[in-house]
Amino acid sequence: MTAAPTVAVIGAGNWGTTLAHLVARNGHPTRLWTREPAQRDELNGRHSNEKAITGLTVDARVSATCEATEALDGATLVLMAIPSQAFRQVCRTLAPIIQPEQLVIHGTKGLEQHTHLRMSEILQAETCVRQLGVLAGPNIAAEVSQGKPAGTVVASRFPAVIAAGRAALSCPQLMVFAGRDVLGTELAGALKNVIAIAAGMVDEMGMGDNAKAFLVTRGMSELMRLCAAMGAEPWTLAGLAGIGDLIVTCASPLSRNHRLGVALARGQTLQAALTSIGMVAEGVFACRSARALARAHGLELPVFERVDRILHEGLAPGEALAEIMRLPAGRDVPSFAPASGGRSPGPTGR
Amino acid sequence: MTAAPTVAVIGAGNWGTTLAHLVARNGHPTRLWTREPAQRDELNGRHSNEKAITGLTVDARVSATCEATEALDGATLVLMAIPSQAFRQVCRTLAPIIQPEQLVIHGTKGLEQHTHLRMSEILQAETCVRQLGVLAGPNIAAEVSQGKPAGTVVASRFPAVIAAGRAALSCPQLMVFAGRDVLGTELAGALKNVIAIAAGMVDEMGMGDNAKAFLVTRGMSELMRLCAAMGAEPWTLAGLAGIGDLIVTCASPLSRNHRLGVALARGQTLQAALTSIGMVAEGVFACRSARALARAHGLELPVFERVDRILHEGLAPGEALAEIMRLPAGRDVPSFAPASGGRSPGPTGR
Repeated sequence: MTAAPTVAVIGAGNWGTTLAHLVARNGHPTRLWTREPAQRDELNGRHSNEKAITGLTVDARVSATCEATEALDGATLVLMAIPSQAFRQVCRTLAPIIQPEQLVIHGTKGLEQHTHLRMSEILQAETCVRQLGVLAGPNIAAEVSQGKPAGTVVASRFPAVIAAGRAALSCPQLMVFAGRDVLGTELAGALKNVIAIAAGMVDEMGMGDNAKAFLVTRGMSELMRLCAAMGAEPWTLAGLAGIGDLIVTCASPLSRNHRLGVALARGQTLQAALTSIGMVAEGVFACRSARALARAHGLELPVFERVDRILHEGLAPGEALAEIMRLPAGRDVPSFAPASGGRSPGPTGR
Repeated sequence: MTAAPTVAVIGAGNWGTTLAHLVARNGHPTRLWTREPAQRDELNGRHSNEKAITGLTVDARVSATCEATEALDGATLVLMAIPSQAFRQVCRTLAPIIQPEQLVIHGTKGLEQHTHLRMSEILQAETCVRQLGVLAGPNIAAEVSQGKPAGTVVASRFPAVIAAGRAALSCPQLMVFAGRDVLGTELAGALKNVIAIAAGMVDEMGMGDNAKAFLVTRGMSELMRLCAAMGAEPWTLAGLAGIGDLIVTCASPLSRNHRLGVALARGQTLQAALTSIGMVAEGVFACRSARALARAHGLELPVFERVDRILHEGLAPGEALAEIMRLPAGRDVPSFAPASGGRSPGPTGR
C-alpha cells in the first residue's frame, strides 16, 4: 500500500483550516501554512483555530507552520484558501519555492481589484505552476467542519488535479464532483456575490419572495451571458459552483454579501455597512469587476450595473429595483451554442 | 383607440382570481369562471374571494360567472388556472364552446396523474384550441395580488399568444418575459415541486444550507437531463420558470410542497402529512410522473427517484440522503448540444 501523498494548505482562515482538517482525516500528512505565529502555535498546541472557526477540534495530524518552504516541501497537492486581495502577495511568497510538478487547487471566490483577474491567472503570472484547478460550490465552512453533508466541485483541465483533489477531500460527508471549466467556475464563484448583495437588499426592503427570485434569476441570466462572452461554458452556472453556491449565499443569514445588502437597504453607507459586518465582502470588489468586464465585452447587465451603482455611486436600492422593473421585458433565457458549436450567443433577452 | 379585448379567466382559485384582477385593472373586460355559485356571488357582490385569496379587493371590472358560454363569449384570450387533476374535466366543459381562433394560456404547474401528460397536451386532445401557451415563474399569488414586484414568463410558439398575454398582464409590478419552449416550461413548473419536497425534508432534518443547496442543484441537473431527453430546451431551466420558480418554492414557508417535505421528515405518513397541509401538493403526483418519464427515457435520476420512494414506498428521508451521498460523484454539470445541433446529450455526470 502506498502512503497517502502529502498535502499543503495555504491559508488558515475558516475554509483553509476546514480543508486541512478534512485532508488530514483522510490520512494525508497535512501542512497548514499561516502568516501568524500565534495561530500556528494554537493549531499545533491546542488543535484549534478559534478566531477562524469556533469550536472545531482540528485533526491532530494537521501540522501548522509559518514557513512556506516547510509547508510545500514534498507536497504533491497544494490547496490555496487566501482572500482574493491577498492572493497575489501570497503567490509571490510561494513563487521561489513552489515546483512546476506540484498540483495546485485554489478555493478563492473573488477577482483581483482593478485588474479584474481571476486567481488562476494570478497564479500563472506569478509562479511556475501550470497544473491547476479551482474548488467551488455551496460550502459554508462551519457546516463542512461540523461534518454536515455537502457537495463541491474541482474544475481543472488536468485529470491529475481532479484526481488529487478528490483523493484529498472526498469523504462520506463531502461529494467531490468534477468540472472542466476553470474560467466559468472562477467567474461564478466571484460574481455570484453581487447577486447575493441584491438578494439581501430585496429581503430587507420586504419586497417579497417573488421579487427576490426574479432578481436572482435575472442576475444569473446576466452572469451566464458574461461567462459565455468571456469564453466560459455557460452550463457551469447550472452546477454546484453556480446556482448551488448562489442558493446558499442568497439564503443563508451567515453570508457576508447578503448581510451587506441588508445593511445597505437599511440606508447605511457602504463604509458603515462594511464596518458593521466586520469582514470583507467579496461582492464589493466583484460588482466593480463585473461592470468593467461587461463593458469590455459590450454587454448590458442591468442587475449587476445597479448593484455597483448602489455600492459605489449612491443609487438608492428602491430606485434601482424600480429602474429594473421599467426595462423592456424581452426573452426569458438567453440561448447559447455550445463552446464547440461555433455559433455566437443568440438574442440576449434582457 | 381600440377597446382592450375581452379576457376570460377559467378558475377562481388564488391564482385565477389574481390573474383576473390584474387583467381587469389593465382595462380589459374580464370574465372569471367558477363552478361555485357562492363564489360567483361573493365576487360580483362584495368583490372578494376570501376562501381563495384573503384580503384582496378584486377589481370591480371582474365579472364572475358559472356559465362557460358567458365566460368565453367574445374573449380573445382565455387564461386557465385549474389544478392539474381537474384540468381534463374542465377542458371537456369548455370543448363544445371554445373556438379555434381563441388564444389560450394556462398557468397550471402539474402533470396529469397516471398519463403523465402536460396540460397543453390535454388541452389539445380535448379541444379545438391550437394557439396556446403557458404562464410560469416565481409567482406566489398572495404577493402578486398585493402589488409586490414579480417577473413571469409566457412561453408559446405563437407570437400572438405572447403578445396577448403581455397586453393582458404586464403592469409596473409584473414584468412578462417571453419564451418559446412550452414543453420545458411545463415540465419545469410541474417537476420542480419534487425538488421542493426534498428541500423541505433537508430543512427539517437540520442537515444545513450546504446539503439543501447540494440536493436542489443535483435535482435541477436531473431535471435538465430529463427535459433534454424529452426534447425541451434545457436552457429553459435556467430561467424564471426553472430556477426562478424553484428558488421561491424551496425558500418560501408558504410552499405546500416544501411543507410536505417538512412533515414527512418529521415522520408523518404521506396521508397524515397531506391532511395536515390541507391542500393538494402537486409534487405528490409529480414524483410519480418524473420517475415514469425517466424510466421511459432510460435515465437514472437519483434525487427524483428517492423522493418518490420516500412518498410512495416508505423509504426513510435520512436513508435516502445517505444513499445519494454514497453514489459515485461524476461530472458536476451535464453538457448539452442545442436543440438544433443534432448532438445527443453528453456524459450525464451523475
